[in-house]
Amino acid sequence: MLNAGQYIPVFTKELNERVIPFWERHSPDREYGGYFTCLLRDGQVYDTDKFIWLQARQVWTFSKLYNNQEQRQEWLDLALLGANFLEKHGRDEAGNWYFSLRQDGQPLVQAYNIFSDCFASMAFGQLYQATGTERYASIARTTFSRILERQDNPKGKYNKLVPGTRPLMGFSLPMILCNLCLELEPLLESDLVETTIDHCIHTVMDTFYDDESGLVLENVKPDGKLSDTFEGRLLNPGHALEAMWFIMDLGERRDDQELIRQATDRALFMLDYGWDKQAGGLFYFLDRKGYPPQQLEWDQKLWWVHLEAMEAALKGLRHTGDERCAQWFVQLYDYAWPRFSDPEYGEWFGYLKRDGTPLHTAKGGKWKGCFHVPRALWGCLEVLKKLPA
Amino acid sequence: MLNAGQYIPVFTKELNERVIPFWERHSPDREYGGYFTCLLRDGQVYDTDKFIWLQARQVWTFSKLYNNQEQRQEWLDLALLGANFLEKHGRDEAGNWYFSLRQDGQPLVQAYNIFSDCFASMAFGQLYQATGTERYASIARTTFSRILERQDNPKGKYNKLVPGTRPLMGFSLPMILCNLCLELEPLLESDLVETTIDHCIHTVMDTFYDDESGLVLENVKPDGKLSDTFEGRLLNPGHALEAMWFIMDLGERRDDQELIRQATDRALFMLDYGWDKQAGGLFYFLDRKGYPPQQLEWDQKLWWVHLEAMEAALKGLRHTGDERCAQWFVQLYDYAWPRFSDPEYGEWFGYLKRDGTPLHTAKGGKWKGCFHVPRALWGCLEVLKKLPA
Repeated sequence: MLNAGQYIPVFTKELNERVIPFWERHSPDREYGGYFTCLLRDGQVYDTDKFIWLQARQVWTFSKLYNNQEQRQEWLDLALLGANFLEKHGRDEAGNWYFSLRQDGQPLVQAYNIFSDCFASMAFGQLYQATGTERYASIARTTFSRILERQDNPKGKYNKLVPGTRPLMGFSLPMILCNLCLELEPLLESDLVETTIDHCIHTVMDTFYDDESGLVLENVKPDGKLSDTFEGRLLNPGHALEAMWFIMDLGERRDDQELIRQATDRALFMLDYGWDKQAGGLFYFLDRKGYPPQQLEWDQKLWWVHLEAMEAALKGLRHTGDERCAQWFVQLYDYAWPRFSDPEYGEWFGYLKRDGTPLHTAKGGKWKGCFHVPRALWGCLEVLKKLPA
Repeated sequence: MLNAGQYIPVFTKELNERVIPFWERHSPDREYGGYFTCLLRDGQVYDTDKFIWLQARQVWTFSKLYNNQEQRQEWLDLALLGANFLEKHGRDEAGNWYFSLRQDGQPLVQAYNIFSDCFASMAFGQLYQATGTERYASIARTTFSRILERQDNPKGKYNKLVPGTRPLMGFSLPMILCNLCLELEPLLESDLVETTIDHCIHTVMDTFYDDESGLVLENVKPDGKLSDTFEGRLLNPGHALEAMWFIMDLGERRDDQELIRQATDRALFMLDYGWDKQAGGLFYFLDRKGYPPQQLEWDQKLWWVHLEAMEAALKGLRHTGDERCAQWFVQLYDYAWPRFSDPEYGEWFGYLKRDGTPLHTAKGGKWKGCFHVPRALWGCLEVLKKLPA
C-alpha cells in the first residue's frame, strides 16, 4: 500500500516552490521574447539559442498550469511571451517548424525535426484552451495535419537513408501522437481523433512490441519484426515507460481496462529490464542483445526517464491496484529525489553518470527545458490525489 | 631525457603481436569482401554494417604496413579485400562516397559525410604505392579533387543550417587535408600540393587559433573570430593534438623549424588544458568558457585522443628537444597503457569513463576500427627509433 498522503506535500512543494519559480525567474527573454533554456545551476544564462522543442514545451507548461492549476495572469503572460515569439519566428515558408532560432528569432537550423511540430501543436492547442483565441487553435490544427502528412518521411529531404535498403519504422512519432491526439481532442473532429487513437494504440502496442522478449522496441521492420542492427536492437526504457502512461490515458479515455492492464504489465517489465542492478536508476539506452549501444551516453541516468517512470508506475497503480507499481514508485522516488532535485536553486539536474553523480549541474540546455519536471510532478500529483489516502 | 630504448620493444610487441593480428584474424569478411569492424572484446562480430570511414582506414593501414614495414603478401591481400569491396560498392552515382553500407555492399546511408571521401582517397593513394595500379591512383586523385570542390559546403543538401544566420567554419576538414596532401603527394601535381599545404597551414595555425586563450578551436566565424555559441565554444583536445603533429610533419617536409616550434608549443598548451586534473587522461570535449558541452560523452577518455597525443608529444620532442614533451609522453603512456591496452585479446579498448574504467569492452564499432592504434604505434615507433637511445 502506497502512502499517497506522504508524497502529496513533497510533490506540491517541489512543483510550486522549486520548479515553476525557477523558470519564471530565469527563463523569460524580455528583450526578444521567448525563453532562455540554457541555464546553469543557479539560473544564469550560458547560451541564448532558442530550440523550438523547448520554446513550445514551455508555452505548453504555463498554459497547462493556467488551465488546470490556477488561472494566474502571470502564467498566461509567460505562455504568451513564448507563443508570440514562436508565431512570429518559428515556421519556415512551407509552415514547418524550424529546429532552432537565434536569440532574436532568426532561423538557425532547418525544419528537419518533426518533433518541433509536435510540441508546437501541443503548445498552441493548450494555449487555445487558455485564451479561446481561434488563431491559436488554427495553428495547432494546421500543424497537426502537416504532421500527419509528413509522418511517413518526417525528415523529408534531410533523410540520409538510402531508400529501400533497410526500411525501418521509428517509435517516437506514433508514441507522441498517442499523447498529442488527446491533447488536441477539443480542437479536432471526433472521427479524426478516433482514427488516430486506433492507429496509435495498434502501432505502440502491437507493431513495436516484441513478443519474444516482452520489450518495446525503438525501430522495427515494416512488418513489425526485429531488425538485428544497431537501430533495431536499440531500447530506450524511458521512452517505453512514457508511452505506457500515454496508453493508460487512452485506456482511461476509452474505458478499456484490458488495454490499461497490458500497458501496466509492459511498464513493469520495462522497469525491471531497464533498472541498473549495480548502481540503481534506469539506463538511458540498452541493446536488445546486450551489445554496446552506439550512444556513448547509454549508461547515464536522465531526469526525464525517472519522471516518466514515476508517472507510469503511479498511473498503473491507480488503474490496476497492482502492488508492484507502488513498490516501483517508491524505488524510483528514493533513487531520483536525492540525486536530481536541487533544494538550493530549484529545478532538477538533468544528467547523472552511471554512479548517480551529476555529469554537470546545469538546469537546462539544448534538450532540457521547462517541461518534463513540471509535467510529471503535476501528473503524479493528479494521481496521488485520487489514490486512497 | 626520455629513455626511448625502453619503449621500442613495448610498442613493437603491441603493434605486431597484439594489434595487427587482432584485425587479421577477426575483421575479414570472406563472404562479401570488406571488413567487420563491430567486434567484441575477443573479436566476435556483433554487427555486420560497413562504415566507409573504417573500411577505407583499414585499407590504408594494411597498405601502409606493406609499404613501410614489410612487404607481406597477406597484408596486401587484406588491403585488396577492402579496396575491391569499396571500389565496387562505395560510391554513389556522382562519385561521392557513401557513409555506410550493408554487409553485402548495398548502400545504407548517403554520401553526406566528406570524411568518407578523405579516408577513401588516403586508402587508394597508399594502395597505389603498394601496387602501382594506376586505377587506384586515379580513384585517389578524383576523390581528392571532389573533396576540394565540396569543401565549402561538405554536407551539400544534407546541411541543415539555414544559410547566412550563423556562418561558421569547421576545423576537421582543413586539419585532415594537412595530412591528406602529404599522403597523396606522390600522386598530385606539385603546384596543387604546395598550394594546399600553404592553405592548410594558414587555416590550422592562424584561422582556428585563438590568440587570447592559446587554444585551437573547432568552429570559428568566417573572420576567424570566436563565436560565443555551443559550436564556437567547443574544444576537442584530441583533434587539436592530432592536427599539431600533422603540422609538425608539414614543418619537417618544408624544413620550417619555427612552424614546428609553434605547433609543439600549442600541443603542450592543449595537453595541459585538456588533461583531467582529478582523474587523469584527456577529456573528449570541453567548452571554451567552462560551460556544459552539448556532448554528454564530454568527460570520457577515448583511445584515439591518447594515441594522437603521444604521437604529438614524441614528434615535438624529436624536433625541438623540449623536455616537457618527454614528460608528457611518459604521463600519457602511463595513463593509457594499463587502461586501453588488452594483453589478453589484443587491440585497445576504445571508451573509458571519466574515472578510467571501460564504458564497454568492445574493440570496434561504428567509429572505431583498424586505424588509430596501428597508425600511432607505428608513428611513435618511427620517432622513438630516431631519438637518442
